Amino acid sequence: MGEAFGLHTFGNDPALMPIIDVANVACGFHAGDPAVMEATVALAKQHGVRVGAHPGLPDLVGFGRREMKLSPAEVESLIRYQVGALTGFLRGHDLPLNHIKPHGSLYGMLARDEELMLGAVRVARDYGVPVFGIAGSAHQRVAEREGVEFVGELYVDLDYNADGGLIILRQPHATDPEAAAERTRRAVLEGVVAAEDGTDIPMSFGSICVHSDTPNAALVARAVREALASL
Amino acid sequence: MGEAFGLHTFGNDPALMPIIDVANVACGFHAGDPAVMEATVALAKQHGVRVGAHPGLPDLVGFGRREMKLSPAEVESLIRYQVGALTGFLRGHDLPLNHIKPHGSLYGMLARDEELMLGAVRVARDYGVPVFGIAGSAHQRVAEREGVEFVGELYVDLDYNADGGLIILRQPHATDPEAAAERTRRAVLEGVVAAEDGTDIPMSFGSICVHSDTPNAALVARAVREALASL
Amino acid sequence: MGEAFGLHTFGNDPALMPIIDVANVACGFHAGDPAVMEATVALAKQHGVRVGAHPGLPDLVGFGRREMKLSPAEVESLIRYQVGALTGFLRGHDLPLNHIKPHGSLYGMLARDEELMLGAVRVARDYGVPVFGIAGSAHQRVAEREGVEFVGELYVDLDYNADGGLIILRQPHATDPEAAAERTRRAVLEGVVAAEDGTDIPMSFGSICVHSDTPNAALVARAVREALASL
Amino acid sequence: MGEAFGLHTFGNDPALMPIIDVANVACGFHAGDPAVMEATVALAKQHGVRVGAHPGLPDLVGFGRREMKLSPAEVESLIRYQVGALTGFLRGHDLPLNHIKPHGSLYGMLARDEELMLGAVRVARDYGVPVFGIAGSAHQRVAEREGVEFVGELYVDLDYNADGGLIILRQPHATDPEAAAERTRRAVLEGVVAAEDGTDIPMSFGSICVHSDTPNAALVARAVREALASL
Repeated sequence: MGEAFGLHTFGNDPALMPIIDVANVACGFHAGDPAVMEATVALAKQHGVRVGAHPGLPDLVGFGRREMKLSPAEVESLIRYQVGALTGFLRGHDLPLNHIKPHGSLYGMLARDEELMLGAVRVARDYGVPVFGIAGSAHQRVAEREGVEFVGELYVDLDYNADGGLIILRQPHATDPEAAAERTRRAVLEGVVAAEDGTDIPMSFGSICVHSDTPNAALVARAVREALASL
Repeated sequence: MGEAFGLHTFGNDPALMPIIDVANVACGFHAGDPAVMEATVALAKQHGVRVGAHPGLPDLVGFGRREMKLSPAEVESLIRYQVGALTGFLRGHDLPLNHIKPHGSLYGMLARDEELMLGAVRVARDYGVPVFGIAGSAHQRVAEREGVEFVGELYVDLDYNADGGLIILRQPHATDPEAAAERTRRAVLEGVVAAEDGTDIPMSFGSICVHSDTPNAALVARAVREALASL
Repeated sequence: MGEAFGLHTFGNDPALMPIIDVANVACGFHAGDPAVMEATVALAKQHGVRVGAHPGLPDLVGFGRREMKLSPAEVESLIRYQVGALTGFLRGHDLPLNHIKPHGSLYGMLARDEELMLGAVRVARDYGVPVFGIAGSAHQRVAEREGVEFVGELYVDLDYNADGGLIILRQPHATDPEAAAERTRRAVLEGVVAAEDGTDIPMSFGSICVHSDTPNAALVARAVREALASL
Repeated sequence: MGEAFGLHTFGNDPALMPIIDVANVACGFHAGDPAVMEATVALAKQHGVRVGAHPGLPDLVGFGRREMKLSPAEVESLIRYQVGALTGFLRGHDLPLNHIKPHGSLYGMLARDEELMLGAVRVARDYGVPVFGIAGSAHQRVAEREGVEFVGELYVDLDYNADGGLIILRQPHATDPEAAAERTRRAVLEGVVAAEDGTDIPMSFGSICVHSDTPNAALVARAVREALASL
């Protein structure tokens, strides 16, 4: 959330914030700016939503969805910078940092590369917060190796490869709320999700992620909540 | 300090850091980048130098020395963002934030405009740190009105107007170390500095500022230290 | 037009392009990016719309609507850069550059300061194109003094001060199409517009400007066209 | 050349410009800014040096040396934007565009990927100028396939892999002028250069490239010139 930029609005934050428990807030590198961050943190506080940092690649035009070759030290520094920046706004609203969840292509890069992931984990350890990521990936392996709490995520609006990797698109696209609800039910009850090729893959998670930039994000989020409530 | 940017080196940080007590570290808006901030904070820690945030205008090409018309809310948000970002690196090195000192044209804008200065003061209050600024200006008036500690600065390498304002140039220029030492002595012993027009103006300060980007910054800093030691 | 940025859409370009004769296309400093510029020039060509450069201040977050203190040389360089950049896309579509019209706060700065305006005029002269601006302001004075064609603009969706200056707001706002039509009729038939304080001010113009970022921009543009056709 | 940025100077342009025939000028994405481009084009004109565009990745902090995953359309647009921007300054000095040579990681990406290279070639064709690149790579293949003149480059200050690829480092490093002269002589007389592993690889070229950011760039360039003159 918080992915507006200057006069450029984005996503569905006011509609989503009342429905969710936890928000991943952009930190100005892939989207967001200081005024947007201030407004987003204020909105989260108003709705009692916990706030995590959502640091991204330094690429506003590409919305952090164009992979870049970065060194482990660069990754750590740019996460540290963005997480710190967000805490400036949290401090103003007397809110704690809830977690760190890397954004977009950075998230994908860190899922595959333990050396890069180490930077995110070191920052999380310094702040005493968990990292959110993909169960079974480098996200989880490095976090647990370094003694940092890990929270797996279930995605209800992205497709999975048969190997458990996410298929990240450059453009937002609408998701069928009922499909999201069904994925939620199966993931909770059976511990699996259907991959793009139709096979079931095991899924371990402690958080369910709904993207804020799809046209019907609020409907998807509500469908997921209702699916959870009905279980 | 920390005003390098990517491959572009800048200033004299390695020569200056051993000579000073307190560093104002750039936060990525007028200069600096995450890797530079990490290196600068590490260097400060190595030399036992206390670190303050040096937030600037969002203008890398202009080095934060081109005034921009910003609203009070924008000023507060961009200071909050940058101060928070710096604390990400301080936390990694287990260092406290020492103070906040706005940079360049932002410093000048805040010296003249109490509404803008309020943003800096609110961030300083949230962090429990003093603001550094010009005694008698809006810097001091707003800080004291809001119950935030104020530390006046003496500049030894900039000229003063007869009304106590600083003459900020776009380009760095060399300063005569002996002139800097002499200004230090008179400011401490007599409480005055000579303005550009030759008149003496009263000067109250708790910190002496030496710019890091002048060609002979380390010589100037050393001359100031020796002047202080000889008093 | 062309004020989208990465995934951030903006304005009403597809609805407006079929209605207009001439487009001012953003050049990447206040808004727009290379892919957006390419798409906008292609759309203009498809509708037979002539394309002018709309260079702005280097401030994406502020959308070029926050004044900056720039030197005449800086203004000329940043206009030259942006105009040149746009011609890269025009060349790809075999279209000529039609004119130069500075954007936002840059437009206002140049209306008031002949030294700054000279930079825009020099670039226009190099390209052999007119500048669009406010009749009677430094826009017109410098263009005519330097032998560059000047085209005055009538604004139908901004308020005028009694001295003929425009009141530029940071945020887009809806305009009453009928009021725009009425302003158009009076400006053409009587050569005046009503200023904010109710007085009539003389208005000389060769082009009518409709902003693309107001919610009902296409309705306003259509109302203006119909007003013109009915005269 | 022209890789300074705001107050951050870079390289050895004033020392190099009198020694060279052709300059690759940065266009503001990996380095350079409008004022630097203006000064660099003026300096080139003063010394009768022909000017080519040196477009790079949109990454100032990484100096265009961090690969990014870009689509062919994105590559074409960002080259078109930067080449166009440079022509704004060339037009002011009544100089023609001499050629296009992609910079840094973009250069390497285009050497390996014909689809990406096509964007550079299309822009070069629109301007009627050659592209500079690595003989035998996608640079040459796509240029020749599309009927655009290709000029091979010999690098005297980078190491070659045994397969003819360049080893591009993030940081500039000094080069031995005598080694550069020797490479020049062998390349001209024998048509080979020694790769990093000691094997000789064939080398076809019409231009010799000397980097401007190595500490002794002017010495290297002079050694190359003298080697050529002595043949």
